[in-house]
Amino acid sequence: MDKKSVRAVLLIISTFTYLLLGAAVFEKLESNDDLERRQEIQLIASKMQKKYNFTRKDYELLQTIVIKSIPHKAGYQWKFAGAFYFATVVITTVGYVHSTPDTTSGKLFCMMFAMAGIPLGLVMFQSIGERVSTFIAFCLRKLRTRLMSKGFNITSEITPTHLLFVSLCIGMLVVLIGTYVFHRAERWTILEAYYYCFISMSTIGFGDYVPLQTDGVLQKNPGYVVFTLLFLLCGLAFFSASINLLVLGFMAPNADVVTAASREPPRAIVFETFAESRPASLASRDFHMASSICNANNGISSINYPTRKPVTHVYHHSFTFDPFELVSELAQN
Amino acid sequence: MDKKSVRAVLLIISTFTYLLLGAAVFEKLESNDDLERRQEIQLIASKMQKKYNFTRKDYELLQTIVIKSIPHKAGYQWKFAGAFYFATVVITTVGYVHSTPDTTSGKLFCMMFAMAGIPLGLVMFQSIGERVSTFIAFCLRKLRTRLMSKGFNITSEITPTHLLFVSLCIGMLVVLIGTYVFHRAERWTILEAYYYCFISMSTIGFGDYVPLQTDGVLQKNPGYVVFTLLFLLCGLAFFSASINLLVLGFMAPNADVVTAASREPPRAIVFETFAESRPASLASRDFHMASSICNANNGISSINYPTRKPVTHVYHHSFTFDPFELVSELAQN
Repeated sequence: MDKKSVRAVLLIISTFTYLLLGAAVFEKLESNDDLERRQEIQLIASKMQKKYNFTRKDYELLQTIVIKSIPHKAGYQWKFAGAFYFATVVITTVGYVHSTPDTTSGKLFCMMFAMAGIPLGLVMFQSIGERVSTFIAFCLRKLRTRLMSKGFNITSEITPTHLLFVSLCIGMLVVLIGTYVFHRAERWTILEAYYYCFISMSTIGFGDYVPLQTDGVLQKNPGYVVFTLLFLLCGLAFFSASINLLVLGFMAPNADVVTAASREPPRAIVFETFAESRPASLASRDFHMASSICNANNGISSINYPTRKPVTHVYHHSFTFDPFELVSELAQN
Repeated sequence: MDKKSVRAVLLIISTFTYLLLGAAVFEKLESNDDLERRQEIQLIASKMQKKYNFTRKDYELLQTIVIKSIPHKAGYQWKFAGAFYFATVVITTVGYVHSTPDTTSGKLFCMMFAMAGIPLGLVMFQSIGERVSTFIAFCLRKLRTRLMSKGFNITSEITPTHLLFVSLCIGMLVVLIGTYVFHRAERWTILEAYYYCFISMSTIGFGDYVPLQTDGVLQKNPGYVVFTLLFLLCGLAFFSASINLLVLGFMAPNADVVTAASREPPRAIVFETFAESRPASLASRDFHMASSICNANNGISSINYPTRKPVTHVYHHSFTFDPFELVSELAQN
């Protein structure tokens, strides 16, 4: 079995172990509470049954209307504001269950809408995430230059760790603002509001906490509707930027840049770059190590890796690199 | 504004236009049905009110117990099978709302679990997706060789379009099997079952249709529980492979491989590869165009791009490539 298949198998084993451990902890944490709640509900249900003496059929009908009327608290879910909210939730793959298409044609259109919308959304977040990273790098470099010109001695250059730190900080700020606003507007506890923000930003989107679902707010409070939509879109853009800097750290070191090297005799690899005006002057050329496209989930899509010192020959079987160093180079160029 | 910022702005405009159009269609399709349903529910509710004469407080209590008892139909959501189902739904970011942590410690653990679990899941799907693509390419090449040895004249080589076609076919097969099984087991219509499969495979995961939520099936039918979990995991692996081949087609052509080229004078780029045993024999070397890592969402992580003919110098300002040709080369090596 080759190295990459071994890696795939190890990842599958790790993930299943992680799921098993997680399931054990969730069972431990939630199971008792669940049982108590179940007993409590049965107790109340039987008291209600005694008091009002429903027929079985009526109780079922009551259950149905209660469940079906949940989304109506929000105002009109399918008038424009609600429909836009729904469309946003689809293409970001957050997917709360607060309102879902009920008609056959609605379901069919929803699938078509998602089919083109999700790739479009991905590409947009990838593009924004990349612009965000580049802009942060630009600001950090300006700040560094300014501080140095004022006599501060900053020897360290801008690294991707700095980029990651700044974009995570901005992401966290978005979440904190969101937490505060939803805590006030939805009357959730601070933890509940933070939990909502986390579950949305990770695109899990359970839908156990969904804003804009009370007091007909979808039609009555357009400012809050816009805030919620912007929170989702901006938050996702910042987290896309952060997560990709992180994911690059996981993925890139495990990928062979030169796959041929593992199949053929050891090779020496030189990636050379020189000015068009002097194509033959091989002696004075600048050397560039490699130019690699890294399209991670959404984020940095293009990184250039020029070495500072000329490199003549590089000998190796499997040529790997440090993605953080790559991004660092991006930040400086 | 540079090219990439223009692209980002265009993408934002396109996405918002798409959302606006989508919202308009959803409103058109769902709004009437929603209004009718709303009136119908109010009618039934007032009939029930007349018949049983609830106090306002009792009706609210009834609403609460009905809503809280929904997850209990599934059997014990937080005993091991249910907890494992929940853990799977979290790390894949599908996130149905069928069962969500209710205790504070459960919510806190859920966030920690997702924080490490989602990257782990992403890396695993990326790795499996890549293995799937490589395996399909291997099978297609074997098939081609066998057919050619039997006298069939197949001149076309294996292209990424073929890879995409085969992995989409396998993905569709998984969805069709899923549709059939869920249609039978959950008594959903064929469209509802297909809609469930689509919404899950795209990781939107509304939770309006969730399998394993009736007749205490979580504890009573372990075979069906295993099928559902495998459906989610295998399906996502195959679609990861397909979607990445597609996303590569969107993203890679828009990314500059050599970003330096846009900042500095035109350069000629030659990526050379030669055997270690003869590092000085530059005249007889094999030329390789580029070795690029493409880490898309999950999928092909490493592609090598050897040219068949020697290339001496390549002159260009912005060096781009056809990702499909790249993947094609991967398939042949």
